[in-house]
Amino acid sequence: MSDESYESRIIDGKVLAQQVEEEVRTGVEDLESNRGITPGLATILVGDDPASRMYVRLKHRACERVGIKAEDYLLPADATQEELLSLIDSLNKNRDVHGILLQLPLPKHLYPQEAMEAISPAKDADGFHPYNMGKLMIGDEGLVPCTPRGVIRALEEYNVPVKGKNAVIVGHSNVVGKPMAAMLLNRNATVSVCHVFTDDLKKYTIGADILVVAAGVKHLIKADMVKEGAVIFDVGITKEEDGVYGDVDFENVIKKASLITPVPGGVGPLTVAILMKHVLMCAEKSL
Amino acid sequence: MSDESYESRIIDGKVLAQQVEEEVRTGVEDLESNRGITPGLATILVGDDPASRMYVRLKHRACERVGIKAEDYLLPADATQEELLSLIDSLNKNRDVHGILLQLPLPKHLYPQEAMEAISPAKDADGFHPYNMGKLMIGDEGLVPCTPRGVIRALEEYNVPVKGKNAVIVGHSNVVGKPMAAMLLNRNATVSVCHVFTDDLKKYTIGADILVVAAGVKHLIKADMVKEGAVIFDVGITKEEDGVYGDVDFENVIKKASLITPVPGGVGPLTVAILMKHVLMCAEKSL
Repeated sequence: MSDESYESRIIDGKVLAQQVEEEVRTGVEDLESNRGITPGLATILVGDDPASRMYVRLKHRACERVGIKAEDYLLPADATQEELLSLIDSLNKNRDVHGILLQLPLPKHLYPQEAMEAISPAKDADGFHPYNMGKLMIGDEGLVPCTPRGVIRALEEYNVPVKGKNAVIVGHSNVVGKPMAAMLLNRNATVSVCHVFTDDLKKYTIGADILVVAAGVKHLIKADMVKEGAVIFDVGITKEEDGVYGDVDFENVIKKASLITPVPGGVGPLTVAILMKHVLMCAEKSL
Repeated sequence: MSDESYESRIIDGKVLAQQVEEEVRTGVEDLESNRGITPGLATILVGDDPASRMYVRLKHRACERVGIKAEDYLLPADATQEELLSLIDSLNKNRDVHGILLQLPLPKHLYPQEAMEAISPAKDADGFHPYNMGKLMIGDEGLVPCTPRGVIRALEEYNVPVKGKNAVIVGHSNVVGKPMAAMLLNRNATVSVCHVFTDDLKKYTIGADILVVAAGVKHLIKADMVKEGAVIFDVGITKEEDGVYGDVDFENVIKKASLITPVPGGVGPLTVAILMKHVLMCAEKSL
């Protein structure tokens, strides 16, 4: 099989993200013309970690593209928990703010869980509030974590059957692995969740019709670990001097996969686009 | 191997339940003597389904044994959703009520999810509120569903290692399967969740070090489907004219299991005892 035919196996996250952003843009316009509401996202950044600044900037740019009004709230690196909670409280009450995003990680002296729980579940654009997580778990998916929602969107766009399929997730984080498992279970996949304590990872991955890898380990998944025809989502990202790597040995694994996301340009852009969709959802449901 | 040696493989749910109840009784006494608080459970039963009446009665009897004050709230089968929500609201505000239990199923014209969400998360003895489910999912286990908590308790009592073990759950209900998966993941098992749409159930169950079956299908799990030495929890219950059956073909599977719960007398009594523990927890945290 030639390299050209492999090309068609690549899930282009940027193209999917553009589709989602286009939908959001239309929704924003409708909301403005019908109800006079411009969706607003408040981002909170504590300190000046360069990577966090970059992520916030990416989200602000996406807001600009779709017509969401983004406001940047910056707290100094030595801000207290009380100051953070007070800011969140004022944003909860601010009727121009429909979505609130607390950029993680926080400086070590702060308590992220308490802060995330302080965000009104109705403005929880990231879907990390326990209430929203619990709704997700019982099958009522409203505001859910953006990355797994992006994976589901891609599965839908590519008409990948999920019900009764063997789905394997590598990584059991609160941000990706666990909500991903819940979303695939909600769609009646048989779901296995593996992680750093799994003793024989290949035994699981080799059976996966759908494989989602979010371990943060460069090229953890090799070609001999995947099933012929598998649909593979690579959520991992490892930065090295010579480039950015995913958790999947893309070059070799693509020869077996039927569909696969690249790193970069796969799940990442889609995640940001889904965040925009969530802000629109928050604004649509606002009173 | 003689039948007597099989006997030692049986996890006696009644004995474990007695241990838990003994702890609760001590806790109740401490709370009364130190803070003058008697834990109170309010049970809500809508209609007069005989099975539901029996379950409520079992819980009231357990309350009597451990010193929890149980109050029985009965609504007629034609009660409206508003009446139900109004009762829940009054119980949320009642300082003598620390735990609220809404007996399911409700009559078909009512909305169980809305009613469960109306219960204050702090009084949610059953652990079904989305907030509590979400906390469970992110690894902060407070009030969690009682049956999976009971399974965890049994694993602890029998010193069954969980971390890195292959755990397989059959059934993906909100009451058992999904919270069970979350609790085993929180303890770093590798977790697979199977259900009615799983195409090759045996492929999963045969690899399970820990197998939790909650499918409600009589003798679904046969001896050839389990691994030698597996630890097996049978949550299923099927009532027939000649007796009560679990989801596991107990008589034959016990020959391969290292530990196994019987039906009846396994997970059932333990679930009720855990409910008592939750009411005590609610009362201890009350102001």
